[in-house]
Amino acid sequence: MRVVRTVLELREALDYMRMGGHTPVGFVPTMGYLHEGHASLIRKAGEMANTVVMSIFVNPLQFGPNEDFSSYPRDERRDLELAEREGADIVFIPGVEEMYPEPIRTKVSVDSLTTQLCGASRPGHFDGVTTVVSKLFNMVQPDYAFFGLKDAQQVAVLRRMVSDLNINVEIIACPIVREGDGLALSSRNVYLSGEERTQALVLSRSLRETRKAIEEGTVRTVEEARKLLESVISSSPLAVIDYVEILSFPDLETLEGGSLLSDAEGEVIMALAVKFGRTRLIDNNVFIPKEVHALV
Amino acid sequence: MRVVRTVLELREALDYMRMGGHTPVGFVPTMGYLHEGHASLIRKAGEMANTVVMSIFVNPLQFGPNEDFSSYPRDERRDLELAEREGADIVFIPGVEEMYPEPIRTKVSVDSLTTQLCGASRPGHFDGVTTVVSKLFNMVQPDYAFFGLKDAQQVAVLRRMVSDLNINVEIIACPIVREGDGLALSSRNVYLSGEERTQALVLSRSLRETRKAIEEGTVRTVEEARKLLESVISSSPLAVIDYVEILSFPDLETLEGGSLLSDAEGEVIMALAVKFGRTRLIDNNVFIPKEVHALV
Repeated sequence: MRVVRTVLELREALDYMRMGGHTPVGFVPTMGYLHEGHASLIRKAGEMANTVVMSIFVNPLQFGPNEDFSSYPRDERRDLELAEREGADIVFIPGVEEMYPEPIRTKVSVDSLTTQLCGASRPGHFDGVTTVVSKLFNMVQPDYAFFGLKDAQQVAVLRRMVSDLNINVEIIACPIVREGDGLALSSRNVYLSGEERTQALVLSRSLRETRKAIEEGTVRTVEEARKLLESVISSSPLAVIDYVEILSFPDLETLEGGSLLSDAEGEVIMALAVKFGRTRLIDNNVFIPKEVHALV
Repeated sequence: MRVVRTVLELREALDYMRMGGHTPVGFVPTMGYLHEGHASLIRKAGEMANTVVMSIFVNPLQFGPNEDFSSYPRDERRDLELAEREGADIVFIPGVEEMYPEPIRTKVSVDSLTTQLCGASRPGHFDGVTTVVSKLFNMVQPDYAFFGLKDAQQVAVLRRMVSDLNINVEIIACPIVREGDGLALSSRNVYLSGEERTQALVLSRSLRETRKAIEEGTVRTVEEARKLLESVISSSPLAVIDYVEILSFPDLETLEGGSLLSDAEGEVIMALAVKFGRTRLIDNNVFIPKEVHALV
């Protein structure tokens, strides 16, 4: 595994791999502090590509002024061990100076898909994501790029960007990885106190129970599903709901509260953002109501 | 020469050339209605690259609602003859449907360099340019891209975009090509009546005379230079000035009116936009005052 810190070294390392016929190239962009979710992305990349590039960069552009950029957890040594163990070929760890040698004046923005859900609570966040991912795609020129579905909105936004701008990469969305007790893995879980960690289980539990109620037919409308999600989450005294939304996926359009889930075409997302103390957690479940309905 | 009309055909044609070792790839994006200025770009591309791709696409995104998108001159047959004669290998002529199969929600914008000069008179114009050029760069993945210096601001904006987003292409700026009498070539010159065409010569004449006055030392400050440009242009009764500006290049920063041109570091641009009837023409001259001064 090669560790590179400059764009020039990265391009050289990639040229070397391509020259040797080690294509296609798979790319896993991360902000580091890697966990089993990231590991699953590297493994998936290894299945589909002959060169696996991972980047580790905590991108200041996608953090708001009152967000956790400076305190975002970092552990380079552990990250490199995990990357090596899981089979990454090249790890790109640029400093902020290398990514933004001068103040960046160019912005890549997607004007739909970014105003709802996390876009509403985090203005400018997705512009920061699409801009840095554009830069990384231009540096790596991967055939496949791997993202976790925990950031489902990010996946939707990046797919739209890739399609709109004719970027020659396929976005591969990978399933959410969870702890044994259901908590979705997140680098931010490290912020949680013991009590917050316990209460945060309401997120996955609300999704599981609502999904089950939909399958059993006791929840039939969008509004009933949202109510059930909210009531499970509210059973935690520490939970402060940012949003609980049920939208079409991946176009993230509002579904009428009174409409039957079984009438929804294609995929639907139940998406949650909830604060526990100062830590904001997200979780979601994407499913096809028509298929769930068929199970009943 | 191959003529392709879809992104898929374009990528296949490029793969074929690359497979055959015909690299580097040079790219000349145009809006068609080609003239000797475009021809000079193709020839320059032929000198630097082993595959020359030209695109012809009148991009609706970079025209304002009251601009000349629908009346912009088009002549595909003549364009293809010129492209073939000058040595293009691949000509990409997509329809609007091929470039924008669904309404585009992604925008690439450069937030400096675009508010002055043509950016002030044509709000949104440069966002349209940077977005479509991003798309074309992603389709062609050229090593070099060739643009005429007549659109000097476009060159400055695209250079900034390429640098900010780490796009792996070198922007090659080529000199303005002029008629024998000095008129800068433009597809829009076809709009001019005989009388407008004659009076439009004040643009190049104002630049030439001001340049000469600077060389001779009779014009020394930024304000004196601007005054001289304006007075020559105003000698045409049909000329309606949009802007006459003297800025640093390529960062397009304002120079103090009272400052000596010989104090300016690096390059300076004298940039003009003037309307004759309904036709808006631009012209400019980029020079290094310190070198001009040395000549005196």
